[in-house]
Amino acid sequence: MKNIKTTKKSAGAGKKSGISSAVIHRLPRYFRYLRELMQNNVLRISSNELSERMNATASQIRQDFNCFGEFGQQGYGYNVKYLHSQISEILGVSEHYNAVIIGTGNLGRALARSKIFVNRGMTLTALFDVDKGLVGKKFDDIFVYDMADLEKYCEENKVDIVVLTMPRDCAYDIAKRLSKTNIKGIWNFTGAELAKSTIGKPIENVHMGDSLMTLCYKIKSAEKAKVEK
Amino acid sequence: MKNIKTTKKSAGAGKKSGISSAVIHRLPRYFRYLRELMQNNVLRISSNELSERMNATASQIRQDFNCFGEFGQQGYGYNVKYLHSQISEILGVSEHYNAVIIGTGNLGRALARSKIFVNRGMTLTALFDVDKGLVGKKFDDIFVYDMADLEKYCEENKVDIVVLTMPRDCAYDIAKRLSKTNIKGIWNFTGAELAKSTIGKPIENVHMGDSLMTLCYKIKSAEKAKVEK
Repeated sequence: MKNIKTTKKSAGAGKKSGISSAVIHRLPRYFRYLRELMQNNVLRISSNELSERMNATASQIRQDFNCFGEFGQQGYGYNVKYLHSQISEILGVSEHYNAVIIGTGNLGRALARSKIFVNRGMTLTALFDVDKGLVGKKFDDIFVYDMADLEKYCEENKVDIVVLTMPRDCAYDIAKRLSKTNIKGIWNFTGAELAKSTIGKPIENVHMGDSLMTLCYKIKSAEKAKVEK
Repeated sequence: MKNIKTTKKSAGAGKKSGISSAVIHRLPRYFRYLRELMQNNVLRISSNELSERMNATASQIRQDFNCFGEFGQQGYGYNVKYLHSQISEILGVSEHYNAVIIGTGNLGRALARSKIFVNRGMTLTALFDVDKGLVGKKFDDIFVYDMADLEKYCEENKVDIVVLTMPRDCAYDIAKRLSKTNIKGIWNFTGAELAKSTIGKPIENVHMGDSLMTLCYKIKSAEKAKVEK
């Protein structure tokens, strides 16, 4: 295959400051789809093909990628592996982060058993719980530590991302404890609305119920469309 | 308290066709916050106060609400209970849906034990699994049915929303089976990308890893900002 020249600006350079949060939110989808293409040994894809699959116009896709530099060449499409690696770099997914999960309830265990970390080049290194009956046990080879040892563990080990799955009431206190450690970010499933401005660390609050409400809206819209036909 | 006159257009009327998906995605956040205000017995709130909490400008909030009709009056702010009920109606959350969960692994159990359904006026009525060892058991009073009886159950009971938490490989086949039933929508956690165009039902695909990648991006941006300082 002919080697296509691309203008390889370094990812994230140039127009970075102007990147809208809408673009940022689309990148994980591109990342997922490109990973699938790589798994299926697809080497090259056009923005039209990406567009069909991604539910976005080809022009929007070209615009999105242009925010970060030039990834493709008119008429030749995108090199899948290169595009995937660049999006990984932009998203910071290629940093080989270590993650720990606080809370070993059903959600904590579901995340621990999923491929969610490994699929993004991360390693889950520990679980934490207040329940002394669980401390010292292992779930799928991941050791459960005592919550009392959280700071000590963070000091002695490289911990980048902390996943909060314990009850909501203690979310703020635990986040405050984490704010004094060297961890890099908090992935928060507790339902509490934590803000970077109060905790001092990047935070992503997950509200799963929001997507359930989006589904409700889609159902309502579909029913309305049926009635109006 | 003085009763404020508002121009009560019926929710969803008027400009509805022009509502962007960005607005729709903000509504669940308003819904959540207004529910909290109600729980704290707050009766009235200004768009400025909403703005501070919601990380959106007051003008954006006013614009969002105007998409659906007039909810507030200049200088008086919004009636919290009324606004909450209108947003519930727009989102279709006030329909008292019944939900069932397919898959009783950790994620299925986490959802079953959460307040995610009850907080939105829904009732979780059944769990389904292929594992004969689990069929007939109960988790928190919710009965586990055999996957072989899915269609029969949907025929004999009102099922509105089906939550998919089983392994990804069977997502498409099960969604196809559901497409022939009377259910209204699918909330899909399997990681498979299901489309309404192929299944014929409204679908919300949840990719939890996407928000993990958004966190990675926030971490990377924060580190970059620190270096640039």
